[in-house]
Amino acid sequence: MIGGGSGAFIGAVHRIAARIDDKYELVCGAFSSDAEKSKASGLLLGIPESRAYGSYVELIEKEKQLPENERAQVISIVTPNHVHFAPTKMALENGFHVVLDKPMTFSLAEALELEKVVATSGKLFCLTHTYTGYPMVKEARQFVASGKLGKVRKVYVEYPQGWLSQFTEATGNKQATWRTDPKQSGIAGAMGDIGTHAFNLLEYVSGLQVTKLCADINIVVEGRKLDDDGAVLLKLSNGASGVLMATQIAAGEENNVKIRVYGEHGGLEWQQCDANTLQVKWLDKPTEIWRTGAGYTSSFAQHNTRTPPGHPEGYLEAFANLYRNFAECVDGGLEGRQPSPESMDYPGITEGVRGMAFIEHVIESGKSEQKWIDLKI
Amino acid sequence: MIGGGSGAFIGAVHRIAARIDDKYELVCGAFSSDAEKSKASGLLLGIPESRAYGSYVELIEKEKQLPENERAQVISIVTPNHVHFAPTKMALENGFHVVLDKPMTFSLAEALELEKVVATSGKLFCLTHTYTGYPMVKEARQFVASGKLGKVRKVYVEYPQGWLSQFTEATGNKQATWRTDPKQSGIAGAMGDIGTHAFNLLEYVSGLQVTKLCADINIVVEGRKLDDDGAVLLKLSNGASGVLMATQIAAGEENNVKIRVYGEHGGLEWQQCDANTLQVKWLDKPTEIWRTGAGYTSSFAQHNTRTPPGHPEGYLEAFANLYRNFAECVDGGLEGRQPSPESMDYPGITEGVRGMAFIEHVIESGKSEQKWIDLKI
Amino acid sequence: MIGGGSGAFIGAVHRIAARIDDKYELVCGAFSSDAEKSKASGLLLGIPESRAYGSYVELIEKEKQLPENERAQVISIVTPNHVHFAPTKMALENGFHVVLDKPMTFSLAEALELEKVVATSGKLFCLTHTYTGYPMVKEARQFVASGKLGKVRKVYVEYPQGWLSQFTEATGNKQATWRTDPKQSGIAGAMGDIGTHAFNLLEYVSGLQVTKLCADINIVVEGRKLDDDGAVLLKLSNGASGVLMATQIAAGEENNVKIRVYGEHGGLEWQQCDANTLQVKWLDKPTEIWRTGAGYTSSFAQHNTRTPPGHPEGYLEAFANLYRNFAECVDGGLEGRQPSPESMDYPGITEGVRGMAFIEHVIESGKSEQKWIDLKI
Amino acid sequence: MIGGGSGAFIGAVHRIAARIDDKYELVCGAFSSDAEKSKASGLLLGIPESRAYGSYVELIEKEKQLPENERAQVISIVTPNHVHFAPTKMALENGFHVVLDKPMTFSLAEALELEKVVATSGKLFCLTHTYTGYPMVKEARQFVASGKLGKVRKVYVEYPQGWLSQFTEATGNKQATWRTDPKQSGIAGAMGDIGTHAFNLLEYVSGLQVTKLCADINIVVEGRKLDDDGAVLLKLSNGASGVLMATQIAAGEENNVKIRVYGEHGGLEWQQCDANTLQVKWLDKPTEIWRTGAGYTSSFAQHNTRTPPGHPEGYLEAFANLYRNFAECVDGGLEGRQPSPESMDYPGITEGVRGMAFIEHVIESGKSEQKWIDLKI
Repeated sequence: MIGGGSGAFIGAVHRIAARIDDKYELVCGAFSSDAEKSKASGLLLGIPESRAYGSYVELIEKEKQLPENERAQVISIVTPNHVHFAPTKMALENGFHVVLDKPMTFSLAEALELEKVVATSGKLFCLTHTYTGYPMVKEARQFVASGKLGKVRKVYVEYPQGWLSQFTEATGNKQATWRTDPKQSGIAGAMGDIGTHAFNLLEYVSGLQVTKLCADINIVVEGRKLDDDGAVLLKLSNGASGVLMATQIAAGEENNVKIRVYGEHGGLEWQQCDANTLQVKWLDKPTEIWRTGAGYTSSFAQHNTRTPPGHPEGYLEAFANLYRNFAECVDGGLEGRQPSPESMDYPGITEGVRGMAFIEHVIESGKSEQKWIDLKI
Repeated sequence: MIGGGSGAFIGAVHRIAARIDDKYELVCGAFSSDAEKSKASGLLLGIPESRAYGSYVELIEKEKQLPENERAQVISIVTPNHVHFAPTKMALENGFHVVLDKPMTFSLAEALELEKVVATSGKLFCLTHTYTGYPMVKEARQFVASGKLGKVRKVYVEYPQGWLSQFTEATGNKQATWRTDPKQSGIAGAMGDIGTHAFNLLEYVSGLQVTKLCADINIVVEGRKLDDDGAVLLKLSNGASGVLMATQIAAGEENNVKIRVYGEHGGLEWQQCDANTLQVKWLDKPTEIWRTGAGYTSSFAQHNTRTPPGHPEGYLEAFANLYRNFAECVDGGLEGRQPSPESMDYPGITEGVRGMAFIEHVIESGKSEQKWIDLKI
Repeated sequence: MIGGGSGAFIGAVHRIAARIDDKYELVCGAFSSDAEKSKASGLLLGIPESRAYGSYVELIEKEKQLPENERAQVISIVTPNHVHFAPTKMALENGFHVVLDKPMTFSLAEALELEKVVATSGKLFCLTHTYTGYPMVKEARQFVASGKLGKVRKVYVEYPQGWLSQFTEATGNKQATWRTDPKQSGIAGAMGDIGTHAFNLLEYVSGLQVTKLCADINIVVEGRKLDDDGAVLLKLSNGASGVLMATQIAAGEENNVKIRVYGEHGGLEWQQCDANTLQVKWLDKPTEIWRTGAGYTSSFAQHNTRTPPGHPEGYLEAFANLYRNFAECVDGGLEGRQPSPESMDYPGITEGVRGMAFIEHVIESGKSEQKWIDLKI
Repeated sequence: MIGGGSGAFIGAVHRIAARIDDKYELVCGAFSSDAEKSKASGLLLGIPESRAYGSYVELIEKEKQLPENERAQVISIVTPNHVHFAPTKMALENGFHVVLDKPMTFSLAEALELEKVVATSGKLFCLTHTYTGYPMVKEARQFVASGKLGKVRKVYVEYPQGWLSQFTEATGNKQATWRTDPKQSGIAGAMGDIGTHAFNLLEYVSGLQVTKLCADINIVVEGRKLDDDGAVLLKLSNGASGVLMATQIAAGEENNVKIRVYGEHGGLEWQQCDANTLQVKWLDKPTEIWRTGAGYTSSFAQHNTRTPPGHPEGYLEAFANLYRNFAECVDGGLEGRQPSPESMDYPGITEGVRGMAFIEHVIESGKSEQKWIDLKI
C-alpha cells in the first residue's frame, strides 16, 4: 500500500475492503512520504519494519527485488490525487498490479498517458469507484442491459454532501485540506471528489456515454479555492438526456448518492442510504422492490453478495467487491484461465480516463458562456 | 364555474376543494362551450336549469343582472389555458372575484394585461398553485423566512411524472390531448403544466426569485408537439443557484413534486408523496421530522390543518386551503376588515405573471445556444 | 346531527366527510345538550334557528313532523359513547337512517338490543370505522379474498398513540376527559377508543373472525380510571393466530394504525401514515407497491378514489367514503334499486356488535387469570 | 474454529466478522465431525493440514500442546445447538477463550452449568447476539440509560422472517433441517433461533429484565416438529409491559428485527433494514433521526463505527463489533489492563443463561393454560 498512514480515511477503508474476503494480505507499505511516519504506521498495521518503506519509489524497487513468492503482487495506491500518476505508472511498469483510488489522475493528460502504460504493462488495473460494487447497482446495470425498460430516455444522478458547508479547510481538517487544494486535487473540487463517482455511476448503470454537457459550477463557501457545488445538464450517446448534481454544501446531507433511470416502459431508482433495495417502476404495474440476496436477482448481484436477504451489506462490502473481483482476475491470470464476466466487472482504466475527461470538460463548461460542450477524449 | 363539465379532471377537484370548508355553494356554471352539455352537467351538479349557461359570456352577463344577494360572488375558471384570459378579464371587470387554474394565461403578454385588469378591478384573484396549500409547504416557507437555515445556497425542485410516456394524445385521452396541443396549451407542454408548479414552489418556499436560467427542453415521445421533459439550471436573486426538473416521461412515476432547500446551517426537504412531513436537516444535529398538526408548527401551518397529527391530509385539503383562504379574504372585504396574514397567503396575480415569464423564458432558453438567459418581466 | 358542537373534534370531521362528495346537506342539529349552546353552534354552521334543537328527543320529534321532502333523511350521531344507544334507537324507530360514531354503544347488551332495532326498523345504519374507508384497505381485503396469498396464517394489527402519555384529563382537555371517564366511555378506554378500530380492521381485511383472545390490559398513567394500553393474543376462525396492540401512552407516536396479514404465499402491509400504499410481499418475488388510483387496482379501491395516482387522499377522504357509500345505499332504497357491492361496503350493525363484544371480552380477559377467553356473542 | 465447514452459513459470517478489524487470524479448525471434510474445508480456508482437526476434542488437545505463542487463543464455536455445551466447556477448561453462536446451549440446565465453568475457568466468553453490535442499538441502550425518556413504560420487539413458510426441511436445506430438528435445536424452533435474539435485544436496549410471560406458540407448517411462530406478552422488572413477536412463516419477510421502547417523555425505534438510523420520538418536539457516524452520538456508538455518516455499515460490521470488542478484552487481559466500558460491551454468559431461561419458559407457557408464567432462573 502506498499512502494510507495514520489519520487517512480511505486507506483504512481499502485495508478493510481487501481483508473481508480473505484474498489479500498486507505485506508492505509506504504509508507516508515521511519515512518515520511510514514505519510507525507499518508497526501499527503489523508490517515488518523492513517492509515499511519511506517512499513509493523505495517500495517498488525493494519489493521488485524480493523473490516472486514473497513480494507484493498488488499495490494499492491511496494518496491524494497529485500522487496518483507517478507511483501507478512505476508500479505497473515494474510488474505490479495496481488498485488506485479515484479520481484517477491529476489531469486528463496524465490519464491518457496512464492508459498507454496499462496497455503496454499487461498488468491489471482497478479504479475504486466504490458505488458500482453494490449488488443492487450491478442489478440495475443488468436490468437496463436486459432491455426490459426499453430505450433509456432520462437519467438523474445526484450526490449531495454537506460536510464542506463551512470553511473546514481552515480548521486543519486533513480531508478537507487536500481536497480543496488545487495543488493536490487538480482543477476540480466537488466535481473531482464526488462528481466523478456520480458520472461513473450514470455511465455504468445506463450503459450509455455522456456526449455533451452544460455545467453550472460554483464556489459557495467564501475563501475556498475549488468548486464545492455543481449541476450539469447532459446529453447521452443514445440521444437521451440527463442531469448530474453534486454538491458538498448541502448542509445536513451525509453521502446519499442516488440514481434514477427511465426508459420507455419503466424506471429504476437506487440510493446508497437504502443500498440493498432497487426500485423497479412500471408504467402500468406496481413498483417492485428488488432486494440484495433474493433468489430472483442476477448472477452479477449474487456474485457480489455474502449474506441472505435482510442481512444488510453496506459500503465496506461494496468496496470489498471491487477488491475481491480484482483478486479473482489476478488469480485467473496466474492460473491461466479466463475469469468470469462477474469477476471482470470492476472499474478500470477506461472508466478512469472518462472520469478525468468529465472533470476537464465540466470545469471548462462551468467557465464558458457556450451552452453545450462536447465531451470528447 | 366556467369549464369543468363531465370528463374534466380538475373541475371536479375544484368543486370538492371549494366544498370542504363549507365556504362556497355552487350556484351557476358554464360547464361546456356546448350549451346542451353545459345544462346536462349542471343538472348532475344540482344547478337550476336557468343558471347552467351556454357560455361564459352569458354566465357573466346574466349573473350580473341578478340581485346582489343571489348572484355568484366568486367565479372559478377551470378551462384549458387558451380560455383563461378572456373569461377572467370579463369576470373581474364585471365585479366578480376569480379563482383561476394554472398556468395563468396563454402567453406572458396576456398575463401582463391581466395584471392591470386585476389592479383596476379591485377584485380578488387566486391562481390555484395547489402545492403551496400544503401545511408543511407553508411551514417550509416560514422556516426559511425565520433565518434559522442562514442564507439559502442551493435549491433543488423536481416534478417527475410518467403519464405521458406514450403517445397518449393519439388515444383520445382528453387530458393528454389539450395539454399537448399548442393551440390550447400555449408554447409549453410539461413546462407549462408542471414546470410552473415547480417554479412557483421554489419561489414560494425559498422566498427568492429566479433571475437567470439555462434550460434543456425536450420532446421525447415521437410525434408530440410540445415539450414533455426538461431540466433547468437556475440563478436566484440572492446569488444562490438551483436546479428545476420537470418531466412527464419518467415512466413509473406518479406525481411526486419535491423540493429541497439548503442554507448555511441546514436544509429542508418536502415531497408530496409524504406530504405531512417536513424534514429539517442540520449540520451538526439529528434531522428533525416536522409533522402536520403538531403543536410546535407555525400559525401558517396550523391555519391550514383540520385534523390532529397522524390523520393524513392530502391533495384535496391542500387545494381546499386555497379556496378557504381566498374565501376568508373575500369575506374580509365584505365585512370591511383586514384578513389575517395566514388568510392572505394564497397565490395570486404576481405568481401568475412570474409563472408565465418562466414559461416564455424557459422555452426560449431551450431553443437558444446562449447559456444563461435573464428572467426579466 | 346529534352532538358535534363547538370544541368537539369528531363532529367537524363528520361534517367535512359528509360534504366532500356533495351527497348531504346539513339541515338540522342538536349540537349540545345545552339548548343555548346548540343554537349557537347551529348559527355558526348556518342552520336556521328553528332547526337547532335543544335535545335529540326534540330533534327527532320535530323533524318527524316536517313534510317528507323537508325533513332530515339521515341523522349523524357523534356524541360520547353513553349517548349513542338512546338517540340511535329513537332515530331508527322514527324512520331516520343513522350514521353513528364508534364504539357503537356503552355496552354489549345495548349493542345486541340495537341490532334488533335496526332489523325491525328497516332503516340503514352505518358505524364510522374510518380506516376501512381507505382505498388501499379495501384493496387489501379484496386481495386476501382473492386467495392469492393462500390461507391466512398470521395477522398483526397495531394502533399506537401517545396523546394520553400524561394525565391529560386533569388539564380540562375535553377529548381526554370523556374518553377516560367510565361513565361516558364505558368499561374500556384505549381498547374502546382505538382497540375497536384495530379489531375491526383486522376482521375486515382478513375476512376472518376472532374466536379467542388473551389480553394484557394496563392503566399506565397514574390516576387514570380506564385502560390506556393493551396487547392481545388472538385466535382466528380459520385456525390462524394474531396479535392486536393498542396503546395511548406510546409517547411520540401520532396515530399510525397498521395491519400486516401473512398467508401461505405472501403477505400484505398497510399503515395509515403511508395510506395510499399497500405493500404486497411474496415468498419468491419482489415486494410490490400497490398505489391508490392505479389502473390495476380493484373496483372497490377505485370506487373509493377521487384523484389520479400521486395525488394523496387522506383521512377525511376515507371518512367521506363511508358517508358517500352510505348515501348511495340510501338513494338506492329511495329509488328501489339494489346498490352496487362497492356501495354496500361500509361498516354497519354487525361490525358494531362485534366491536362491543371485543370490548367486553378483552376487558374481561385483562382481569382474568385464565389464559384464553372465547369471544362469543 | 469448531464447525463452519462447507455449506454452513454462520461459519463464514464468523470468519468475515473476525477478519474485518484485523484482530484475528484463523489458525486451526475442526470444521466438520467428518475428518476428511474438515481437512477439505481447512484446505479451502488456507489452514495447514496439521491443524485441520477431525474433531473438537482433537483440536483442543492438540492446540493445547502447542507453544503458547503458536497455539490458538480464542476458539469460535459455530456448530448446531446440541454441540455447543461440550466443546465450549472443554475449551474453557483447557485455557481457551470462547466465542459461541447463540442460542447458548441445548437446555437451561446446560446453560447453568456452563455459567459455573466460565466463572471457574477465568477465561472470557462471548455469545454472538449480533444485533447488539449495531452502533445505533448501542446508542439506543445509552439513550434509555440516560433517563431522557423517563421511566420505560412499553416495549415492542419483533422478528419476522418468512423463509420457513414452506416445509423446507423436507427439501434437504441444511439450515432448515437442523433448526427444525428437536435433536439438534432443542425444545424450541423459532423461539430459539430468533426469539432469543429479540429477547436479548429487548433486555439490552431497555436495561430491564423480563419477569413474567404469556406465550402463544404455534407450529404453522404441517409436519414441522418445532415451533415456527410465536407471540409473547411480557412483564418487565420495572413494572412495564411488552410484546415479543417472532415468526418464520411471515411469507415475504426477510429478517427485519425491530424494537420500539416508550418512556414517559418519548420513544425510540430501531429496525435492521434501516440499521444506521435510530428514531427518537418526543411528546412535544419533532422526531429526531439519529445516524451512525454522526458527531453527536455516544462513545459507545462511535467505538463501533468505522466510516463517516452516510457510508452504511451493515450486518457483518455489527458482527465484527462483537469480535473486535472481545479481542480488545482478550488483549487487555494479556496486557494486564482493564478494557474500556465500550470494549466490554458484548454479550456473554449472563445473556446466554437468560436466553436459555427464556426458551424454556416461553415453550412451557405455550403449552400451559395458566396465563402468566414467572421467568425465574
